[in-house]
Amino acid sequence: ATVDKEVDFANYFCTYAFLYHQKEMLSDRVRMDAYFNSIFQNKHHFQGKTVLDVGTGSGILAIWSAQAGARKVYAVEATKMSDHARTLVKANNLQDVVEVIEGSVEDIVLPEKVDVIISEWMGYFLLRESMFDSVICARDRWLKPTGVMYPSHARMWVAPIRSGLGDQKQQDYEGALDDWYSFLKETKTYYGVDMSVLTKPFSEEQKKYYLQTSLWSNLHPDQVIGTAAVVKNIDCSTATVDDIREVRSKFLSSIRGEGTRLCGFSGWFDVHFRGSTEDPAQQEIELTTAPSTYNGTHWGQQVFLFRPSVRVSEGDDLNVSFSMTRSKENHRLLEVEFSCEIRESTGQILPPIKNKFYIE
Amino acid sequence: ATVDKEVDFANYFCTYAFLYHQKEMLSDRVRMDAYFNSIFQNKHHFQGKTVLDVGTGSGILAIWSAQAGARKVYAVEATKMSDHARTLVKANNLQDVVEVIEGSVEDIVLPEKVDVIISEWMGYFLLRESMFDSVICARDRWLKPTGVMYPSHARMWVAPIRSGLGDQKQQDYEGALDDWYSFLKETKTYYGVDMSVLTKPFSEEQKKYYLQTSLWSNLHPDQVIGTAAVVKNIDCSTATVDDIREVRSKFLSSIRGEGTRLCGFSGWFDVHFRGSTEDPAQQEIELTTAPSTYNGTHWGQQVFLFRPSVRVSEGDDLNVSFSMTRSKENHRLLEVEFSCEIRESTGQILPPIKNKFYIE
Ligand SMILES: Nc1ncnc2c1ncn2[C@@H]1O[C@H](CSCC[C@H](N)C(=O)O)[C@@H](O)[C@H]1O
Ligand SMILES: Nc1ncnc2c1ncn2[C@@H]1O[C@H](CSCC[C@H](N)C(=O)O)[C@@H](O)[C@H]1O
Repeated sequence: ATVDKEVDFANYFCTYAFLYHQKEMLSDRVRMDAYFNSIFQNKHHFQGKTVLDVGTGSGILAIWSAQAGARKVYAVEATKMSDHARTLVKANNLQDVVEVIEGSVEDIVLPEKVDVIISEWMGYFLLRESMFDSVICARDRWLKPTGVMYPSHARMWVAPIRSGLGDQKQQDYEGALDDWYSFLKETKTYYGVDMSVLTKPFSEEQKKYYLQTSLWSNLHPDQVIGTAAVVKNIDCSTATVDDIREVRSKFLSSIRGEGTRLCGFSGWFDVHFRGSTEDPAQQEIELTTAPSTYNGTHWGQQVFLFRPSVRVSEGDDLNVSFSMTRSKENHRLLEVEFSCEIRESTGQILPPIKNKFYIE
Repeated sequence: ATVDKEVDFANYFCTYAFLYHQKEMLSDRVRMDAYFNSIFQNKHHFQGKTVLDVGTGSGILAIWSAQAGARKVYAVEATKMSDHARTLVKANNLQDVVEVIEGSVEDIVLPEKVDVIISEWMGYFLLRESMFDSVICARDRWLKPTGVMYPSHARMWVAPIRSGLGDQKQQDYEGALDDWYSFLKETKTYYGVDMSVLTKPFSEEQKKYYLQTSLWSNLHPDQVIGTAAVVKNIDCSTATVDDIREVRSKFLSSIRGEGTRLCGFSGWFDVHFRGSTEDPAQQEIELTTAPSTYNGTHWGQQVFLFRPSVRVSEGDDLNVSFSMTRSKENHRLLEVEFSCEIRESTGQILPPIKNKFYIE
């Protein structure tokens, strides 16, 4: 279920061809600091080495790799952004080290294998965009057996949250339905056509849009109302596409804090730069997109809201089944399912809440 | 310069597959009244006749055609909206007359030629979306020589306007550049990379976005400050794709009203339902999207703003050269150029203002 290649190019890649969008990523200080520190505090991984930057965009990671002492950097970029990357490399006088190659990393041929693969491939909730597939392909073809991955590890997290957004979305949804009923009346009265048979598909369409699509949010840490769980652990040096095509996890989360409302779940990720077992990092660096008061990222968190929300209190336990699969129509989009059983501290067990969401 | 067919389907057709979007069109009373009246005040065109509805969407025009007495209606729709159209036809008990066919009108085969082709093919400023190409194709293949087109005629209009939006857009553009300069400083200071070489392409990208993209607007008639001109006349019964691929027109517009500012131009369209010379309408109907206080449409007008605006007064004449072509990358998008010479009532002639815009 991969979309037509031309369609994928038109839809997925088009935003990356804008400097405006690259600038947004380049202005994310948490992201920039993590990659910058991972490189410059681990220069031994770069000095005299060959590097492949998968999806170089503006060229930033390739330039840093060169500045850290790489002998040669192959900087591959699918979009026309490659022209800007080349200009930037030249303006920083690194054209002898950094070679910018326009093309999909799946299609290119390098003259040698590399010591390091560096890439900023993470999408919303880590796997949206499915760009890690391309990194895996590049790794299997072009990384030396002794090579290291930047980043080396990635994790997906899920936690129960409270949020005021759910009520708002519910109201929007109900508003859209009210509007539909006036529309039906008008169309019947003025134009003699009864459209009420379309009420069901219309309400399903709107339900998906308002209530079943995950939301981008930068949550305050206080909105997390129970223990967070790792639902996926990825070793970037060994993971296969099959390993990441689906994510399934069952976990327990304990509610903390006095009486509060369980409004849904949130998902985020972190990645680590640890080098490899044989050639570990001197300084391990972490990049986290967890809810944070001061260190928000452009990824934020994905929020999955239930309605109605449920009253919970300290000591209640959530028994959660989580699954994430790729959308059948577009492998870069995701579908998420939650089943959540509440075991109250009194011992009472509430019937499981089941919900399906789309990450679009 | 036609985009890949799969890409076109993914991008152009996807919105039409949502009931939400069809409902927006079905809620446009000016649009609905025009088609409704054109059919029910000209029943002789439909009674006992065969009809082809190109792009039936929800099926509304096909249903009306059947209600007006058509013997058979072929309702062709490229998207999955065809399923909803079929449901709606059935719910209105017209399944013996209306046959819904899912597919591009370019690909379908009908068992007979038809007496009427009806279609609502108009995009922003008439030709955006280039859907009339499909109607032409259907007409040349499936309309009887004696057949009639609904609508039968279309016109594109251009007029000088005043608007406050230009200053706003100019400020947004300048704000984006200020922002860029802080970004350059930060990137140099914190991350050791000089990105100033990208200032030119960034500012061009932003200029296109803020200043060279036409805006959707529902203008007040008072914002039109000079005579409006027809820049294109289309006879739907005879026009070829070559006739509409480009639009070029030179016209004169006289400024009316006291001292005012020329901020740019606006473009809109109207279509007429007149039947054919041999088989004229009993009641001619017009659908106009001109600036209007009470009868705005979902098409609004397209607005093309110059900066800076120019002071003009009653009696000044504008000597305008207008051209519109299709975008090389996507035949459904348009590029517009204006060259405007101001001849003041004093006899003085100002140097021509030239501007290029994208209708995206
Ligand atoms: N298969 C592939 N081959 C080449 N480039 C790809 C790719 N998939 C995604 N990309 C590119 O990867 C980039 C990811 S965004 C990261 C850009 C840059 N490395 C930075 O850290 O700022 C985008 O520019 C996108 O166009
Ligand atoms: N080449 C083509 N073949 C079939 N359908 C097409 C088409 N090009 C556009 N369409 C469809 O034409 C419709 C135009 S919108 C108009 C819908 C409906 N006739 C109404 O008046 O409310 C869309 O639903 C679009 O999907």
